[in-house]
Amino acid sequence: MRAELIAVGTELLLGDVVDTNTAWLSSRLAEVGVDVHRHVTVGDNVERVAAALTEAADRAEVVLVTGGLGPTQDDLTRTAVALALGRPLRRRPELEAALRERFAAAGRPMPASNLVQADLPEGARALAAVGTAPGFAVPLGGATVYCVPGVPSEMEEMVTRDVLGALVERGGAGVTRSRWVRTTGVGEADVAEAVGPVVDRLDAAGNPTVAFLAAGGETRVRITAKAADRAGADALLAPVVDEVVALLGPVVVGVDEEAVEHAVARLLVARGWTLAVAESITGGGVGARLVRVPGASGWFRGGLIVYATPVKVTLAGVDAAIVDRHGPVSEEVAAALAAAARERLGADVGLAVVGVAGPALQDGQEIGTTWTSVALPNGPPSSSGAQLPGASRERLQARAATVALDRLRRTLATAP
Amino acid sequence: MRAELIAVGTELLLGDVVDTNTAWLSSRLAEVGVDVHRHVTVGDNVERVAAALTEAADRAEVVLVTGGLGPTQDDLTRTAVALALGRPLRRRPELEAALRERFAAAGRPMPASNLVQADLPEGARALAAVGTAPGFAVPLGGATVYCVPGVPSEMEEMVTRDVLGALVERGGAGVTRSRWVRTTGVGEADVAEAVGPVVDRLDAAGNPTVAFLAAGGETRVRITAKAADRAGADALLAPVVDEVVALLGPVVVGVDEEAVEHAVARLLVARGWTLAVAESITGGGVGARLVRVPGASGWFRGGLIVYATPVKVTLAGVDAAIVDRHGPVSEEVAAALAAAARERLGADVGLAVVGVAGPALQDGQEIGTTWTSVALPNGPPSSSGAQLPGASRERLQARAATVALDRLRRTLATAP
Repeated sequence: MRAELIAVGTELLLGDVVDTNTAWLSSRLAEVGVDVHRHVTVGDNVERVAAALTEAADRAEVVLVTGGLGPTQDDLTRTAVALALGRPLRRRPELEAALRERFAAAGRPMPASNLVQADLPEGARALAAVGTAPGFAVPLGGATVYCVPGVPSEMEEMVTRDVLGALVERGGAGVTRSRWVRTTGVGEADVAEAVGPVVDRLDAAGNPTVAFLAAGGETRVRITAKAADRAGADALLAPVVDEVVALLGPVVVGVDEEAVEHAVARLLVARGWTLAVAESITGGGVGARLVRVPGASGWFRGGLIVYATPVKVTLAGVDAAIVDRHGPVSEEVAAALAAAARERLGADVGLAVVGVAGPALQDGQEIGTTWTSVALPNGPPSSSGAQLPGASRERLQARAATVALDRLRRTLATAP
Repeated sequence: MRAELIAVGTELLLGDVVDTNTAWLSSRLAEVGVDVHRHVTVGDNVERVAAALTEAADRAEVVLVTGGLGPTQDDLTRTAVALALGRPLRRRPELEAALRERFAAAGRPMPASNLVQADLPEGARALAAVGTAPGFAVPLGGATVYCVPGVPSEMEEMVTRDVLGALVERGGAGVTRSRWVRTTGVGEADVAEAVGPVVDRLDAAGNPTVAFLAAGGETRVRITAKAADRAGADALLAPVVDEVVALLGPVVVGVDEEAVEHAVARLLVARGWTLAVAESITGGGVGARLVRVPGASGWFRGGLIVYATPVKVTLAGVDAAIVDRHGPVSEEVAAALAAAARERLGADVGLAVVGVAGPALQDGQEIGTTWTSVALPNGPPSSSGAQLPGASRERLQARAATVALDRLRRTLATAP
């Protein structure tokens, strides 16, 4: 089954908002064997939305429209679908009642403008609102058009509840599943060359397929298989993933959703070690990444955010003479902080990261200079420096967190 | 001038990657007065990329293509553009030399596969590589097609260097600028109703225009103006922004890029106060948000990441009896942590957040239960609880950070 996605919203065309809905929807559709052939984004304009709908319905069996179902006058999806269908909008009493009930339950008066959310194109089947916006499904040409809200949490709940199951029933065309092998520190061409033998062998059969992607400081290998069901696809994928991991060796960070923090978690759990952090440039960003891992409370103690220079001395107990002599962004201060994190939080392992995020140089050091240090249960902390590229302060801080976590991963992987 | 954007990559259609390039490009194009009418995403398929290109070149004067310029066999944009043009690819000796030089300078052997990056469609003008992938510009029908890499940092540098200036020279059609007023704690319809008088008055003139958007826990009001130049657009926007801010009052978090952390920074600077945090559920995420603000070292001291329960006692010095009696996720522990952050880091203000992120309940408390507390220079800490919705652990942690920062903002705004 072939699908196209249409995202509606001038804010997307103006670049004011990054569209995360489309990636989420695409993943879910791939999982149930629906092939997404195209994403289209159009603005809040009735004629252009209607035109995009008509084109998509000509090419695909399923068209999923996100956005434009709110209560304000720039929410035009209902009107655009009615135009594409050549049918009027009708107010649905049951939707109006549900809206009034929702506001009454919240003890708030309902703004009159919310009532337009009870209007649907004639012939549409309502999908009950998660927030205040009902969705709907309606046939157009040979396709089924599903319209769901643009607010991500509402969209996800409505699609999960009302759309995916219906597509599985209609489908039966099998499933497409992808797995990822994620690497750091090597380029795309090198990765492609290393896994060349696998790619050549698979190309002959055409299933699974292999692709490469550079993103977020990683080079990723994607392996995609089609099969009658999930188990069949997984069985095709598993040996290829293992082979790719073996060919790539230590540059592999993890597979699938396993970011570097998951690899760190696995290595810590395997040793029975706990971790504490001391962060300057990242301001808590390393800890925030670590606590995303479910079960982090089993191995993450916490840490020290030592952003201001004096706090490195007063809170972490770094010798003021070391800070004075080497400066706050130095191998020596990173090492002292890693040791302090271990001690002050009673952890087995300490991780510290310091650096210059800009906008100004710090003590004459370039923006992007970072030092990471790891203190293991035995021996002195081991530190490493890096000069990170970074177009913005925020991106630089995010990269510093990734570099620190990857340094920890590599140190744990080879620890005695 | 009308533009369309085409993103190339099966990873986008499979939902493996969120496309952030398109939003970045759309913002930059709007700033130089180019109207983006459509975004299209297609997979790594020569015929489909060529078809999307031909369609877009029929409708627009500028077509910007991202992705598919890497060295691997799924990088097909060069071939697809050649197909759409009906012309062959030619190896460019100067691009080949630049590639060889780049690898030689890095002291690495060049994989033979990288050479395809020196092949461009006949008649194309090369845009020098930022990484290993050169881009190119070529006329197709009545449009100019620009092809740039999909790696965000390479794309941003190439577009800034080689594309935007050329469009400004061709343009002269004026600029489109948007500003945002950002609110929390109120729905879209309420916000629309509050600013209704402004909208009605502007609708008559048609410039600026106003739109509403719910995203990331905020309701945003966008005001967009077209004018001959940036100063003209800004002059149209400023009074409307002021009027909207005045009509909305205390629910306004900030304007434009000013997220809640920027509002916090402004309020702290105005008082000459410094801040320290104590974080449990967010693991450092509140600190990470705060240090994104340039100049954070002027008012942010740092903090305590008190993730494991015993660390709340040993590191922050919370009375163990309070933790035992009320549990780690409680008003009392949040208040003690806010006071501890102030004291231990020598800050004027302390902010603490505790909560249950899941996947399991904690001491019988629901996932999403959070307590935030703010300790000001005088008086006892003031705390507030919330039951946050959250589809995933990560989203819940992000919301908890936003709620804590907004609580701090409101407390600072009304502090004696």
